[in-house]
Amino acid sequence: MCRWIAYKGQPVFLEHYITTAEHSLIHQSLHAEQGKTETNGDGFGIGWYGTRSEPGIYREVLPAWNDCNLKSLAAQIQSPLFFAHVRASTGTATSRNNCHPFSYGPWMFMHNGQIGGYEHVRRAMESQLDDYHYGRRLGTTDSELLFLLALQEDLQSCAVKALTKVLIKVRQYMLDKGVADALRFTSCLSDGKRLFGFRYASDKFAPSLFYRRYDNGDVVLVSEPIDRQSECWTEVPQGHSICFTENKVTLRELAF
Amino acid sequence: MCRWIAYKGQPVFLEHYITTAEHSLIHQSLHAEQGKTETNGDGFGIGWYGTRSEPGIYREVLPAWNDCNLKSLAAQIQSPLFFAHVRASTGTATSRNNCHPFSYGPWMFMHNGQIGGYEHVRRAMESQLDDYHYGRRLGTTDSELLFLLALQEDLQSCAVKALTKVLIKVRQYMLDKGVADALRFTSCLSDGKRLFGFRYASDKFAPSLFYRRYDNGDVVLVSEPIDRQSECWTEVPQGHSICFTENKVTLRELAF
Amino acid sequence: MCRWIAYKGQPVFLEHYITTAEHSLIHQSLHAEQGKTETNGDGFGIGWYGTRSEPGIYREVLPAWNDCNLKSLAAQIQSPLFFAHVRASTGTATSRNNCHPFSYGPWMFMHNGQIGGYEHVRRAMESQLDDYHYGRRLGTTDSELLFLLALQEDLQSCAVKALTKVLIKVRQYMLDKGVADALRFTSCLSDGKRLFGFRYASDKFAPSLFYRRYDNGDVVLVSEPIDRQSECWTEVPQGHSICFTENKVTLRELAF
Amino acid sequence: MCRWIAYKGQPVFLEHYITTAEHSLIHQSLHAEQGKTETNGDGFGIGWYGTRSEPGIYREVLPAWNDCNLKSLAAQIQSPLFFAHVRASTGTATSRNNCHPFSYGPWMFMHNGQIGGYEHVRRAMESQLDDYHYGRRLGTTDSELLFLLALQEDLQSCAVKALTKVLIKVRQYMLDKGVADALRFTSCLSDGKRLFGFRYASDKFAPSLFYRRYDNGDVVLVSEPIDRQSECWTEVPQGHSICFTENKVTLRELAF
Repeated sequence: MCRWIAYKGQPVFLEHYITTAEHSLIHQSLHAEQGKTETNGDGFGIGWYGTRSEPGIYREVLPAWNDCNLKSLAAQIQSPLFFAHVRASTGTATSRNNCHPFSYGPWMFMHNGQIGGYEHVRRAMESQLDDYHYGRRLGTTDSELLFLLALQEDLQSCAVKALTKVLIKVRQYMLDKGVADALRFTSCLSDGKRLFGFRYASDKFAPSLFYRRYDNGDVVLVSEPIDRQSECWTEVPQGHSICFTENKVTLRELAF
Repeated sequence: MCRWIAYKGQPVFLEHYITTAEHSLIHQSLHAEQGKTETNGDGFGIGWYGTRSEPGIYREVLPAWNDCNLKSLAAQIQSPLFFAHVRASTGTATSRNNCHPFSYGPWMFMHNGQIGGYEHVRRAMESQLDDYHYGRRLGTTDSELLFLLALQEDLQSCAVKALTKVLIKVRQYMLDKGVADALRFTSCLSDGKRLFGFRYASDKFAPSLFYRRYDNGDVVLVSEPIDRQSECWTEVPQGHSICFTENKVTLRELAF
Repeated sequence: MCRWIAYKGQPVFLEHYITTAEHSLIHQSLHAEQGKTETNGDGFGIGWYGTRSEPGIYREVLPAWNDCNLKSLAAQIQSPLFFAHVRASTGTATSRNNCHPFSYGPWMFMHNGQIGGYEHVRRAMESQLDDYHYGRRLGTTDSELLFLLALQEDLQSCAVKALTKVLIKVRQYMLDKGVADALRFTSCLSDGKRLFGFRYASDKFAPSLFYRRYDNGDVVLVSEPIDRQSECWTEVPQGHSICFTENKVTLRELAF
Repeated sequence: MCRWIAYKGQPVFLEHYITTAEHSLIHQSLHAEQGKTETNGDGFGIGWYGTRSEPGIYREVLPAWNDCNLKSLAAQIQSPLFFAHVRASTGTATSRNNCHPFSYGPWMFMHNGQIGGYEHVRRAMESQLDDYHYGRRLGTTDSELLFLLALQEDLQSCAVKALTKVLIKVRQYMLDKGVADALRFTSCLSDGKRLFGFRYASDKFAPSLFYRRYDNGDVVLVSEPIDRQSECWTEVPQGHSICFTENKVTLRELAF
């Protein structure tokens, strides 16, 4: 499994959550305690919103803990909303274009999970992309493909609806191809203003999703808690989405 | 344009043609004299036949002249038939999976040229791949796609026929999409025994293709002559294929 | 030769001078027109001052034109003072630690030139480093070594004096070892407030150094002019330093 | 701790011990069961003897499990004597020049262990190198430095004597600087004919060293057993060297 963290709140230096703290993502990428995959050494990425509507993206195939550029960038860049992701490949190659987060215009997406039998449904899914989104396919992961399909389903209008539609379709492709493995999808999405989390699986084992909300309104949304104050972390139940806007937290059951 | 060299003959250390000589491929990648593109710094690759039927493949995104691994490999590996390729990207990303040569079973392929308006015909071409070959698509280049399509056209039975079929189809896709740019295809192919060269363009400007045959039967097939003894190099005319077997050289006009 | 650009003025997006313009550094790294070395593909680096006193540093061994991270970073980061450097190695390895700029605390340094017979004087020069600066030696270039020696000569008090002292010493080591090749040193330095340029050679062939000052006080200091409006660029004469502060430009002859 | 394997015997494809087997080094680099360091993702290297007296060397900063080049090379290259090493850095940077094995002429060396307080004794050790060996220092690791010092102590005449001398000196430097941490040194060395192992520590915790000798004389020397047939593996006791020649195994106590 991959690991990731998303932050929304007062502008902070990225390093606070990515490189310096004891429970920063880098520390986690070396010592994955709760995930199935033992090491998250198959590339990483960060994405952040600055003064432009499109996020900045930095992705690299080295293990995050070995990248001195990441250390310097995380020490310089401040942002009110950013993602960081360390990858443990579930089969596809380690290349920058296969690293999360993925972005399109102001949207940014990262994912933890897997389409069961991806090699059997990949083609059917790719053929669903219209020419415009097909031309924006740069890597080979299921994650990027899910993001492109959601963009095509008008993610911009309603992110929850778009992703639900995509998951229903993918589930159908898997059934059509007789894939017995599960579809598991825990993900994070943003348009630079709102922060969304999704937690879904076709079986009972959706990858975990937690958040912590500080008194000042700052929010940290993560694949796993980054400290041991477990009472401070709220688990998003399977089959739900969560949305953080300036003042509100909205938890919704996904409608399948 | 890319640059490449292929060798068939007495086993030699790869370094002789790749790293050490004054006119080796590495020298050329720094000082491209005749090609249009000024520098071939967008990755490189080598492929060679050893004791197995499948070739060994080594590809890297660094400029060839900066790779100390290449120097050591070229000094160690001897082969009776090998390829080396330095890439100047015509648009697609620099990643190992986009570097030449491409291989499948005992077949190895490298290419210099371009499908005009590739972004407009790529999808139609990819949809022609059957599931089996679609699953073997690892990168995003036109070159790999042409190779997969040729494999599907039974390259194994007749390489010239298969590649001709593919080029005719690609030309048709380009016409269908109203692409005015040319299709240019100078390439090199081997099954570990025979060495094939192709030189084709839909206009008059097929990338160059030369060979030199030594008295002992050794053959060097190249995108451009690697020394200034121009009288020793034979140009393969546009619209032709050439095939080197143990004792024979066969030049054929491509049938369109 | 390497190529570089330094900017000091109103905060601008780095992309303006690094990635987008026709005469940006990336364009230049592919098409070196005036330099001796044909291609600057041996790594690159950027450094910029943000809200901290230490600059951010991003260095990579890929050719600059192939790095999608650079494109995104240059589009996001705004700075009132930054450096960018594309490297053409004069012998030492291509590694991130050998890429410019080099930094120490608030100081940042980049260099174009060469210590003649570096392999003969390197050891004597390294032995001049005190333990503290020896421990900060991360790469193997002459450039980093010159910077560390200058730091040790109290660069912080007077940059011009410190660098002059270092050059005099290096020249002496070269004479001691009977090195006939020249010492050539065109460089750029900053503490986040002032921008310094140096142009020196032990023969008549110091690498070029130009600047352009806009009406609003913005300054661009470069190894070569980045546009063809040659009347707008002022050449810094050999054997001189130049210093840009908030309101002043100070040209000084180097005292040897 | 790093992990490594060395093989001497009938020529085999490297893949047998490096990439394919359940207990190959790649499997181990992902699932380090006995070592202290949890993951060996800080680069790797292989070295092998072919038809030349100098070994071939291939080193890369990616985790070994992500390198498709390694898979192809290990499937092509056959050798009667080779090394493979996966690195877990003890502090120095991840760069190719810091990856093992190191080579000089026909000699090849790899190491598992650490010079306690290396940052305090590094300079004194480097100053012991004569100009010739100083010029051959390419990286910054303690391992490369130990190898260069041993070469200078006439490793070629007696490897055991040379390495013992170096360890005694290093121990002295550590005492001089008041370093309390241990010197730990388990290593592997070859000249292309003989295979040496060393296991030493200044405390009781020398990194482990095992070998397995097959009936046909093939030998595998490893940092940890690569299968669970523990009865087949012989542990080299701390404070000993072992040497495998064509017909003989010589275990010697190190003389300090």
